[in-house]
Amino acid sequence: MLSLVDIRARIEGGTLTPAAAIAEARAAIAEREPRIGAIAHLAEDVAVPETGPLAGIAVGVKDIIDTAEMPTQMGSPLYAGWRPRADAAIVARLKGLGGVALAKTVTCAFAGLDPSPTRNPHDPARTPGGSSAGSAAAVAAGMLPLALGTQTGGSVIRPASFCGVAAIKPSFRLLPMVGVKTFSWALDTLGLFGAGVRDVAHALALLSGREGIDLGGTPPGAPRIGLVRQEFAGEAQPEAERTLERAVRAAERGGARVTALTLPDPLPEAFRRHGVIQDFEALQALGWEYANGRAALPPVLGAQLDRAQALSAAEYDDARRHAHRARRALKDLFSEYDALLTFSATGIAPGPETTGDPRFNRLWTLMGVPCVTLPVPGEALPVGVQVIARFGDDGRALAAARLIEAGLAAG
Amino acid sequence: MLSLVDIRARIEGGTLTPAAAIAEARAAIAEREPRIGAIAHLAEDVAVPETGPLAGIAVGVKDIIDTAEMPTQMGSPLYAGWRPRADAAIVARLKGLGGVALAKTVTCAFAGLDPSPTRNPHDPARTPGGSSAGSAAAVAAGMLPLALGTQTGGSVIRPASFCGVAAIKPSFRLLPMVGVKTFSWALDTLGLFGAGVRDVAHALALLSGREGIDLGGTPPGAPRIGLVRQEFAGEAQPEAERTLERAVRAAERGGARVTALTLPDPLPEAFRRHGVIQDFEALQALGWEYANGRAALPPVLGAQLDRAQALSAAEYDDARRHAHRARRALKDLFSEYDALLTFSATGIAPGPETTGDPRFNRLWTLMGVPCVTLPVPGEALPVGVQVIARFGDDGRALAAARLIEAGLAAG
Repeated sequence: MLSLVDIRARIEGGTLTPAAAIAEARAAIAEREPRIGAIAHLAEDVAVPETGPLAGIAVGVKDIIDTAEMPTQMGSPLYAGWRPRADAAIVARLKGLGGVALAKTVTCAFAGLDPSPTRNPHDPARTPGGSSAGSAAAVAAGMLPLALGTQTGGSVIRPASFCGVAAIKPSFRLLPMVGVKTFSWALDTLGLFGAGVRDVAHALALLSGREGIDLGGTPPGAPRIGLVRQEFAGEAQPEAERTLERAVRAAERGGARVTALTLPDPLPEAFRRHGVIQDFEALQALGWEYANGRAALPPVLGAQLDRAQALSAAEYDDARRHAHRARRALKDLFSEYDALLTFSATGIAPGPETTGDPRFNRLWTLMGVPCVTLPVPGEALPVGVQVIARFGDDGRALAAARLIEAGLAAG
Repeated sequence: MLSLVDIRARIEGGTLTPAAAIAEARAAIAEREPRIGAIAHLAEDVAVPETGPLAGIAVGVKDIIDTAEMPTQMGSPLYAGWRPRADAAIVARLKGLGGVALAKTVTCAFAGLDPSPTRNPHDPARTPGGSSAGSAAAVAAGMLPLALGTQTGGSVIRPASFCGVAAIKPSFRLLPMVGVKTFSWALDTLGLFGAGVRDVAHALALLSGREGIDLGGTPPGAPRIGLVRQEFAGEAQPEAERTLERAVRAAERGGARVTALTLPDPLPEAFRRHGVIQDFEALQALGWEYANGRAALPPVLGAQLDRAQALSAAEYDDARRHAHRARRALKDLFSEYDALLTFSATGIAPGPETTGDPRFNRLWTLMGVPCVTLPVPGEALPVGVQVIARFGDDGRALAAARLIEAGLAAG
């Protein structure tokens, strides 16, 4: 894989130019894209800034994120060839830092659950996950050092786990959503994919303008990590169970104190209402598409919006109150823990007929808390673990993830 | 003015067809628009639904709100002729209820503070206010019974006050913002303009899918109304002071108990940080425009974004914490009051070199609470008063405003 931090070190050390770094990514795409199918559009002529803290970094932009110079097609024929007027705020920010938006990456239609054509780089007969399919796969295949995705249920953490890359879904609205196609405004969150934890940490610190996020080391003292199995969400597969146990041992090797905990009732109660909030909003957010292009929507999304018509405003308001209570309960919980450790996905990537199950991601998206996934070697196919910190403390989630990453390397 | 409730009553009574109602609006526009300049684009051929609870209602859509069948030009040459792919969620909802998006209404550039060419229907030498200039003026001039605007500082309540119409800025995110150009995602709120309080109440109940909002009467018992002068925000003009006193007497005639109160410290503290949140987000939200079209931005907005470059993420995060504390303090306050009553604007509309001062609106936008303005006769030019209820209780704000409206009619 291409490491953002390594590329930047080579550029700062004078052994690589930004233009050569972009050319390397372009060459990797030319070689590997035909068997992956991660790229929805590749920029032809693109200016490569010589300066800026992200100069030389080729970035994949999920194809629900507006770009003024490339089409933005939402994974749907309803937006075939569509060219927005402006870049999304995150793309403008990226360019302002010297980064190059080199490609649009394949998305499931409107960031929903219908599978995309992208293949998992570790096994072409399996899904890369969704809905940020192309972003996860492009980083995993070594085509790009950084890619932008979005998560409403589990669309960043799950594909990263399936593809064996690191990713962060930051605190809600830490990164600006302006110019990103909405599925659910209370849930949609921009996320970042990279080769390792330090790569996404560095990118997030720069993109958010918050240097403190990129701590570069472990937190002082023995971190207190709560082990959460999310039984309320259902079962994990043996691969995910074994992976979680490996991560626990790695955390302990890194000096963390890991204790199992059961989440208090407001959290499972909120988990059960994630879908009400998501679908009630999605029917409004996709109101034009539903009214004018229902027949062009893919089967899972179409049926999901059909069902959403039965949801009432009262159910939605009630679900939001439950979410509010759960956020308070979670905030209290974080007085006792620096981070939580849980599954990133149910197990290894399934076949291409699905994008996998977001059950272990939905609660945390609803809570708005930062979630990091990192790959944990040991299974035949990639599986990650998820590290969660309290709202606004993205740096701590990343530091705890880095501690586990280091413990794995030492194990 | 054209009353939405009256038009609907005539249609339901069989004395008016939806097509005839739309034709009436079109005729009024043909007659009055030349001296007002409220319309950015008028729909030519438009299908008029025969059924639906908003059938026959011609709606003005502020020109920062996406429409698939009309241009959306943001009040800026950077978007000259721009045609979005999809309708904004609120426009799709409006159409689904049978309403007709008849016109795009003039907006100040990107909903900022630079004056628009629209004139105040009550005095063409004065501003209609901003940034929802065309929406307020079109309703005031009797061209449209309903218009959509947005408020980030005071862009709904202030122009409604200056133009002598009723309006509501509902609870934050009660109406969906998908497809509305962002200035500040923590603040931007869709609002509605109508001839009277019952008109905006009925429209909001339908658009939000919450029948309870349209209570139709006063709340049980004597409403407790807190009188707030917002001294921390600066002075009001004598016209506004006299108008507020008239509203107090009207409320008392309607049976309310009105007591003066001073807002606790967290609220003025939050007020002072509104601009930090707004401008820090605006620079990101308009990142593409700033990077690619700085010279095409109007002077006030351009300078505002220039200054915003000096704002740090730490200042922004601190401002958000202050806002959070103030929301809690305000929630506590509403255990003692059904509604608050305050100025809608500093006084009568000033000249066209400004859009007026949003000082009495900014705190409430930041708090996300529902704000209703209603015109209070008695001055030579229009002045309104503002009625505020707690977050999520839009129906109560409207009921209290209706009580004052009835008290004024009886006075």
